[in-house]
Amino acid sequence: MNPLGVHPPVTAVRTAVERALAEDLEPLGDLTAALLPPEAMASGSIVSRAPGVIAGSRCAIEAFAQVDPAIEMTWLLDDGSPVARGDVVARLRGPLASILTAERTALNFLGHLSGVATLTRAYVDAATTGGQTRIRDTRKTTPGLRALEKAAVRAGGGANHRGNLSEWVLVKDNHLVGMSIAEGVAAARARWPGRTVEVEVDRLDQLRQAITAGADLVLVDNMAPDDVALAVAERGDARSPLLEVSGGVTLATVAAYAATGADLISVGALTHSAPALDLGLDLDSGPGVDRGEA
Amino acid sequence: MNPLGVHPPVTAVRTAVERALAEDLEPLGDLTAALLPPEAMASGSIVSRAPGVIAGSRCAIEAFAQVDPAIEMTWLLDDGSPVARGDVVARLRGPLASILTAERTALNFLGHLSGVATLTRAYVDAATTGGQTRIRDTRKTTPGLRALEKAAVRAGGGANHRGNLSEWVLVKDNHLVGMSIAEGVAAARARWPGRTVEVEVDRLDQLRQAITAGADLVLVDNMAPDDVALAVAERGDARSPLLEVSGGVTLATVAAYAATGADLISVGALTHSAPALDLGLDLDSGPGVDRGEA
Amino acid sequence: MNPLGVHPPVTAVRTAVERALAEDLEPLGDLTAALLPPEAMASGSIVSRAPGVIAGSRCAIEAFAQVDPAIEMTWLLDDGSPVARGDVVARLRGPLASILTAERTALNFLGHLSGVATLTRAYVDAATTGGQTRIRDTRKTTPGLRALEKAAVRAGGGANHRGNLSEWVLVKDNHLVGMSIAEGVAAARARWPGRTVEVEVDRLDQLRQAITAGADLVLVDNMAPDDVALAVAERGDARSPLLEVSGGVTLATVAAYAATGADLISVGALTHSAPALDLGLDLDSGPGVDRGEA
Amino acid sequence: MNPLGVHPPVTAVRTAVERALAEDLEPLGDLTAALLPPEAMASGSIVSRAPGVIAGSRCAIEAFAQVDPAIEMTWLLDDGSPVARGDVVARLRGPLASILTAERTALNFLGHLSGVATLTRAYVDAATTGGQTRIRDTRKTTPGLRALEKAAVRAGGGANHRGNLSEWVLVKDNHLVGMSIAEGVAAARARWPGRTVEVEVDRLDQLRQAITAGADLVLVDNMAPDDVALAVAERGDARSPLLEVSGGVTLATVAAYAATGADLISVGALTHSAPALDLGLDLDSGPGVDRGEA
Amino acid sequence: MNPLGVHPPVTAVRTAVERALAEDLEPLGDLTAALLPPEAMASGSIVSRAPGVIAGSRCAIEAFAQVDPAIEMTWLLDDGSPVARGDVVARLRGPLASILTAERTALNFLGHLSGVATLTRAYVDAATTGGQTRIRDTRKTTPGLRALEKAAVRAGGGANHRGNLSEWVLVKDNHLVGMSIAEGVAAARARWPGRTVEVEVDRLDQLRQAITAGADLVLVDNMAPDDVALAVAERGDARSPLLEVSGGVTLATVAAYAATGADLISVGALTHSAPALDLGLDLDSGPGVDRGEA
Amino acid sequence: MNPLGVHPPVTAVRTAVERALAEDLEPLGDLTAALLPPEAMASGSIVSRAPGVIAGSRCAIEAFAQVDPAIEMTWLLDDGSPVARGDVVARLRGPLASILTAERTALNFLGHLSGVATLTRAYVDAATTGGQTRIRDTRKTTPGLRALEKAAVRAGGGANHRGNLSEWVLVKDNHLVGMSIAEGVAAARARWPGRTVEVEVDRLDQLRQAITAGADLVLVDNMAPDDVALAVAERGDARSPLLEVSGGVTLATVAAYAATGADLISVGALTHSAPALDLGLDLDSGPGVDRGEA
Repeated sequence: MNPLGVHPPVTAVRTAVERALAEDLEPLGDLTAALLPPEAMASGSIVSRAPGVIAGSRCAIEAFAQVDPAIEMTWLLDDGSPVARGDVVARLRGPLASILTAERTALNFLGHLSGVATLTRAYVDAATTGGQTRIRDTRKTTPGLRALEKAAVRAGGGANHRGNLSEWVLVKDNHLVGMSIAEGVAAARARWPGRTVEVEVDRLDQLRQAITAGADLVLVDNMAPDDVALAVAERGDARSPLLEVSGGVTLATVAAYAATGADLISVGALTHSAPALDLGLDLDSGPGVDRGEA
Repeated sequence: MNPLGVHPPVTAVRTAVERALAEDLEPLGDLTAALLPPEAMASGSIVSRAPGVIAGSRCAIEAFAQVDPAIEMTWLLDDGSPVARGDVVARLRGPLASILTAERTALNFLGHLSGVATLTRAYVDAATTGGQTRIRDTRKTTPGLRALEKAAVRAGGGANHRGNLSEWVLVKDNHLVGMSIAEGVAAARARWPGRTVEVEVDRLDQLRQAITAGADLVLVDNMAPDDVALAVAERGDARSPLLEVSGGVTLATVAAYAATGADLISVGALTHSAPALDLGLDLDSGPGVDRGEA
Repeated sequence: MNPLGVHPPVTAVRTAVERALAEDLEPLGDLTAALLPPEAMASGSIVSRAPGVIAGSRCAIEAFAQVDPAIEMTWLLDDGSPVARGDVVARLRGPLASILTAERTALNFLGHLSGVATLTRAYVDAATTGGQTRIRDTRKTTPGLRALEKAAVRAGGGANHRGNLSEWVLVKDNHLVGMSIAEGVAAARARWPGRTVEVEVDRLDQLRQAITAGADLVLVDNMAPDDVALAVAERGDARSPLLEVSGGVTLATVAAYAATGADLISVGALTHSAPALDLGLDLDSGPGVDRGEA
Repeated sequence: MNPLGVHPPVTAVRTAVERALAEDLEPLGDLTAALLPPEAMASGSIVSRAPGVIAGSRCAIEAFAQVDPAIEMTWLLDDGSPVARGDVVARLRGPLASILTAERTALNFLGHLSGVATLTRAYVDAATTGGQTRIRDTRKTTPGLRALEKAAVRAGGGANHRGNLSEWVLVKDNHLVGMSIAEGVAAARARWPGRTVEVEVDRLDQLRQAITAGADLVLVDNMAPDDVALAVAERGDARSPLLEVSGGVTLATVAAYAATGADLISVGALTHSAPALDLGLDLDSGPGVDRGEA
Repeated sequence: MNPLGVHPPVTAVRTAVERALAEDLEPLGDLTAALLPPEAMASGSIVSRAPGVIAGSRCAIEAFAQVDPAIEMTWLLDDGSPVARGDVVARLRGPLASILTAERTALNFLGHLSGVATLTRAYVDAATTGGQTRIRDTRKTTPGLRALEKAAVRAGGGANHRGNLSEWVLVKDNHLVGMSIAEGVAAARARWPGRTVEVEVDRLDQLRQAITAGADLVLVDNMAPDDVALAVAERGDARSPLLEVSGGVTLATVAAYAATGADLISVGALTHSAPALDLGLDLDSGPGVDRGEA
Repeated sequence: MNPLGVHPPVTAVRTAVERALAEDLEPLGDLTAALLPPEAMASGSIVSRAPGVIAGSRCAIEAFAQVDPAIEMTWLLDDGSPVARGDVVARLRGPLASILTAERTALNFLGHLSGVATLTRAYVDAATTGGQTRIRDTRKTTPGLRALEKAAVRAGGGANHRGNLSEWVLVKDNHLVGMSIAEGVAAARARWPGRTVEVEVDRLDQLRQAITAGADLVLVDNMAPDDVALAVAERGDARSPLLEVSGGVTLATVAAYAATGADLISVGALTHSAPALDLGLDLDSGPGVDRGEA
C-alpha cells in the first residue's frame, strides 16, 4: 500500500503525541520508572495479540522518540499491513526506563488506530463479497483525532468522506429551509464553484430531484437494501451522481448493501465504535538485560 | 449522582472543545450552513436512540456555546443519568445555522463519552450480580481525552485507576530489574512517601511477597477466577492490600470475577473499546420554523 | 450578502486575535496608555479613509472585546459592504485606555482583510465587464491567516479555491511522474472517491486528455486570452469540466480573460499582494471627553 | 549584511511554520501527493521570477525540514541579498512528495517576506537619492507575523520602529487627555525611566513643546515636505530629538521627505501593503527523475 | 496608584491562569471537592497574614472566574495597595466546591506576585531614605511569568528595566568583541535608531567612554558605593546618561547606593528571590453555611 | 542520586523553555547580539557563585539547544549535585551571539530551580539533625512551573506531596461540611478506591478520629513541636497513618519538629520563597576568542 496515502499529516502526529505524553507524565513524571537503575537497557518487540490491520505507526514512533531519542526502533509493519496474532510489528532497544515511560502512550495510539483500520478492513472485506462498493468513514470521529482516524481508515482500505465541514457541501433535510433540493444544489454551485456537492435523501422522489439538480453524490439515508437497489436503478449506469449508502449499516448487512451496486457505503462505526486492536510490548530477557526476580 | 464527581475539569472541557471545533470548521467554515437564510431560527432536542448512560454533557454545552452564545440550552439529563431509547437529553433553541454547525462536534463528544459511561455501567451491573467488586478504568484511554474519558467512567458508576504515570506507583514485572518485590515496594515508599503503591503479580507466591512488602494494592494479572479466589483467600478478610483483577475481563466473565470477592476489577475496554452511544439532534418543525419541502 | 458565507470560523477569529494581542502587548502592556487617567472614557468611530469593501469585522470586534468587555460597539457595515471614503464602519464607546490599546490590532485585521476584499471586488467588477466568469483565490495566502483571508475573498464577491491540500486533488505537471493525465485522474478517483479532481494543463492536447479523463475542473495555466478561448471552445458548452484560468492575470487583463467564457479565474494576488484598506479610528471630542490642549 | 540582525527569533520561526503547515495539511494531508510513487526523488531550485530582496529564508528552511528531514537544502542567498529575475535562491533535493507538500508553505513565507524586504529596499533606495534619512516600519503589520515582518524590513535595509506597545512610549494626540505635551513626557519619564519617549505632533508649536519637554523622538505626522523642512530647522543640527516623518509617504514622495533632512521616515505600507515577491520552485528533470508524459 | 500601570496585559493573565488551572486539575479534577454536597454555598475573605503590598489581583480574579463564573467577587485592595496583617483583600461568595478548587491557584498567583511587590516596596522605601534613586527589576524573572512579575514590580513602586532582549540595547563586556564602547554604541544607534542604548561598565574609564559615546544609560556593575559616587560626579548634573547601579545590591546596602545620587538601581532579587506574601482564604461560618463537625 | 527521579518530564521541559525563550526574544530578537560579528565563537563555563544544589539542568540544556543546535555542551554536575562557590557546572562552546542570547533564559531556569533544590537541601539537612523525618513540598508552587519545581525538590533530597488536586484526597476543615472525619474518609474510600487519603487536623481528638477512620496520612497543621510529639505518641509505633507536620515550619524550627518523630514535614517555602541560587556564565578569553578592548 502506498505509504503516502495512509499516514496522517506530520503536524497532526507531532501535536497529538505531545499532548498525549504531557497528559500521561505531568506533573511528576513516571513515578515507577524513577525506581529503575538508570543504566538499565532493554530491547523488545511490539507484538500483535490479535489479527488485524496496523495503523498509527507514525504516532508510536513519535512517542518513543519524544520521550528519548536514544531509543532505536525498527518498524517492520507499516500502516495498512495485515497482522496475525503473534506478529512482530516493530523492534526497539534503548534505556529501559524510557521505553516503559513511553510504552502506554505509544500503544494507545497504535491500538486505537489499528482498531479503526481493522474494523474498516472487516467492512471492506465484507463489502467485497457483495460487490465493488467502497467503504468510507464519516465525521463521527473522536474529538481531536480526526486526522489520525481518517488516516487509519485509509490504512484499512477505506476511503475518506469529507474531512470536515469545510471540505464539501452536504445538503441534509435540515438545510432545506424553504428551498427545494434543486435550489439547494444551485446555491451550493454558485457559492462554492467546483466543489463536491452531495445531497442526502431518504425517498426516491428526492433522489430524482438530486439527480436532476446535478449533485455529485447522493447520500441515501437509512434505506433498506431493496430500496437502495431501486435507487441504483433509478440513477442508471453512468455512475453519476455517485450513490452513497449511509445509516445503520453493520458488518452483517454491509454485503447486502454492497450487492445493490451502490458506489459507496459510509459507516460511522469505523471511527466511533471500533474496539482497540490488542497490541503489547514484550521485552526480551536476554543476558544483557537481566530482569526478573531469579 | 453527585455532579461534582462526574464532570471533567473545566480546563479539559474548554480546550478539548476548542480543538474539536477548529478541526471541524477550518479553514472555510461550514460550507453548507452558509447556504441557509441567516435569520432562520430553530429549536430541537438531543434524543437518545438507544438505552445507556449520559456523559459528556459539559462538552456538548461548551461546543454549542463556543459556536454561538445565542444558542439557548436546557440540559435535562446530567452525566450519570440513565437514558432509554427516545429520551430527551437536552432542549436547545437558536439560530439554525449555528445549531447545525455545532451539532456534530457536540454529538461526537456526547456519543463517545456516553458510550464509555454506558459500557462502564454494563460492567458495573454485571459485577453487582457477582459481588461488591468495583469496576475501574486503566490508562488505556484515547490519546488526548484522558480527563474526559475518566470522568465518563465515573458517570457510569466506575472508579478511576490512576490518572497517569504521575499519580501512583505501579510496579510491574518489567520494573523488577534485579530487585525483588520487597525491594521495589521499599524503594517506592522511600522515594514517594504516602503515595499509593500497587504491585502487579501473576502468581500466588508473588502475591504473598507483595502482601508482606506492604503494598496498598495488588493487581492480579490474567488469572482465572478460581485463581483469583485463591488470591482473595490468601489476602484474607482485612481487605489490605486491596485486590484488583486485571487482564481480559469481559462482560461475560466479570460476574465470575466479582464473585471471587476481589475488591476491584480494572477493564481497559471501558475506554479503548466502548462503542459510541447513538444520540441525535431532532429539530422541531413547528410553524415558526417551516422547514421541509412539503 | 449572506453573512453566514462571509465570516470566518469563530475558532479562527478567536485564536488569531489572541495571538495578535499578545504580540502587541507583552510583556509590559501598553506603556503609553498607562499614562492616561484610568477613569477617562471615550467614544469614536471607525472610518474608512478610502473606498473599498469591508472584511474582518469579527476580528475587530473580538479584539476590542478581548481587551476590555466594557467597550460597547455598534457595527454598522458588515463584511461585504462597500464603503466610500469617510463612511463610518462602526461606533464604539468605552474606557479611553482600553480603546487605544486595542485600536491598532483591530485596525490591522480590518485593514488587511478589507484590503483583500477590496482587491477581490476590483477583480470581480473588472471580470464582470468581460463575462460571467467567477474570480477566486489560491493557496498563496499569508501564513497563519488562511481562514481569515479566504473569508475576506468571499466578502469581496470572490469564490474560494480549495482551502488547503486536504480539500481536493489538483494534479500539476510535477505530479505526473511516470503517469499520464488519464492515469492521474483515475488514481485520484480511486483513492479519493467523490472528491473534486482538478488538472493543471498548459497545452490544448493536455486539456483534451483532462476532459477525456473526466476531470471536474481544468486549470489552464499561463495561457494568453486567445488560447484560453480556444480551450473554452474545445471544452464545449456543457460546462463540464469547469475551465479555470490561472497565472499572471492582472486587473488590466482580467476582462479579456473573462471574455473568453472561462468559468473561473484564480488570482494569487488577491491574498498575497492586496494593499491594506486605509481605515482609522476617530475619537469624538465632545464635552464629556475633554481631550486636547485647547 | 550581518545575518544576526536580519533573521527573526527562532521561536517565532518555529511556531509560525508549525501553524502554517497545519493549516495547509490537516485533516487529510496532501491528497495529490498521496498519488505519487513513494520512492520518487526530486531535486530543484527556488528561483526568483522578479528582481527584489530575499527575506524569510529561515521560515522556508524550517517548512521543508518539518515536513521531511530527508530533504537536503543548500541555501544560496541569505536574507538581505538582492536577487535578479532568474536567480537561484536555494537548491534542494529529496523525496518528491515531501517537496511538493512543503512547497507552497515555504514559498508563501518566502514570497511575502521577500515582498516586504523588496518594498523596504525600494523606499531605502529612493530615500537615499534625497538624503541620509532612514526608512522604518510601523506597528501596521499582518496580525501574528510581527516578528517575521519586522525582520524582513531589516533585511530590506530598513530599521524597526517599536516592536509593540510594550517597547517604548509614543504619545499621540489621543493620549493628551487634559495634559500638555510637557506633562505627558514627564509622566513617561517618571513611569518608564530610561526608555525611549516619542511624541507625535502635527504643528510646529507642538514640535517646540516636544523639544522643550526633552522627547527622544518627535513624529511629525502628515506634514508636507516643506513643513517638515521647517521642523528640521526648528529642531537644529544637534539631531536631538530625532525627527521622524510619518503619514502617507509614498515611493513618489519619499525622496522629497528625505531631502528635508529628517532622520527617519516610517512607512506603514512596508508591512501592510507590500506585494509578494514572485518566487517559484523549479524541479530538475534529469534522467534520474523522469517526470513528464513524454 | 494608576491601575493602568500596575496590571499585566490581559493576554498574559488569561493564558497564565489557564495553564496554572490545568496544571492543578487535570486529569481527574479536584478529588476532594468531589466529596462535597454540590449545593453547598460559601462566602469568605482573602486575608493577608503579613504586611506587604498587593499584586496579582487580576490573576486571582481570573482563576476564580475560570473555575466557576458563579463565584461573585468584590476586590477591595487593588494591585499596589499596602496591606497590614489581617487586612481583607477581597470578599467572595459562591459554590463551596468551586471556591476550594480555585483557591490554591488564585493564592499562588497572589502570594507570589504580592511577594514581588512587597520586596520591591522594601527596596523603594530603603532607597528613599538615601535619595531620589528609582528601584527597578532585571530580566532575572521566573521563566514564563515575565509579564506578571514586571507588573508586580510596578505595583511595588519600582520601575521596569527592559522587558526582554527585544526592547533595548544593553552592551555588556561580552558583546565588546573586537570593538570599543564607542563603536558598540555607534553600531547600536545605526542599527536600532531611536531606541534606548545602555552600556555596562565596571571602571570609570569605561564610564567616560560610554558618556562620550552618547549612551542613554550606563549600568555600573558591581561597584562599591564610593565608586558609584565618583561615577555620579564624573557624569555630572545633567543626568545624561542616566546612571544605573547593578550587582549585588541588598536591602542593607541600597540606601548607601541611593545616597550616591545614582538615578536607578536594578535588583535581580526583586523577581528571582522574593519570598511569597502570606495570604489565605478564610471562609465564613455563618448560619447559612453550616460547616464544621458540631 | 538516581537521575530518573530528579529530572522533570521531558514534555514540561520542552514547553517551559519554548515559552521562556519566546518571552525573552519576541518580537525583534536579541538587539544587542545582532551587533556581534556573526562568525565570533566563544567558549565558557557555567559557574556557581554560591554553595548550593543543582537543579534545572535539563531546562538549561534545552534552552541553549533550542536557540542554536550548534552550541556544544558538556554538563558536569547533574541535578542533585552539591556545588561549592566557584564550581564549574557545565562547559559550553559555540557561536558567541547564540550563547549570549540563550544565557539569561538558561540561567533563569537553573538559578530558580537550583534555589529550590538548595533550600530543600537546607531543610533536609536541618531535619536530619533532629530525626528521620522527610521534608516535602506543597502545592504552593509558582504557577506554570509545578512540574519543574517538584523535580527540583527531589533534586534537593526532598519528597513530593501530591502533584495536584487530581493525585490524592486531602480532607481539610473546609471540606467537612456537615460530615465527620469518619464520613469524609469513608466517602473518599468509596469514590476513589486505592488512592491516598490524607486528613488535616489541628487537634488531638481530630487526630484520633482520623486514625480510627483509617486515613493513610494525617496532616497536623500549625501545632507546636510539643503537641506534635503528643500526636506522634497517640499515633503509635506502627507508622500508620503517616504523620505529616505542616504550617509555618522554618529552618530554625524544623529540627525540633523532626525530633518529634513525625514522618514528614511539608514546607511551602521550598517552592514559594526559595531565593535563586547565584550562577553565572563566564566566557573564556583565550586567543581564539579575542574579546575585550585591548
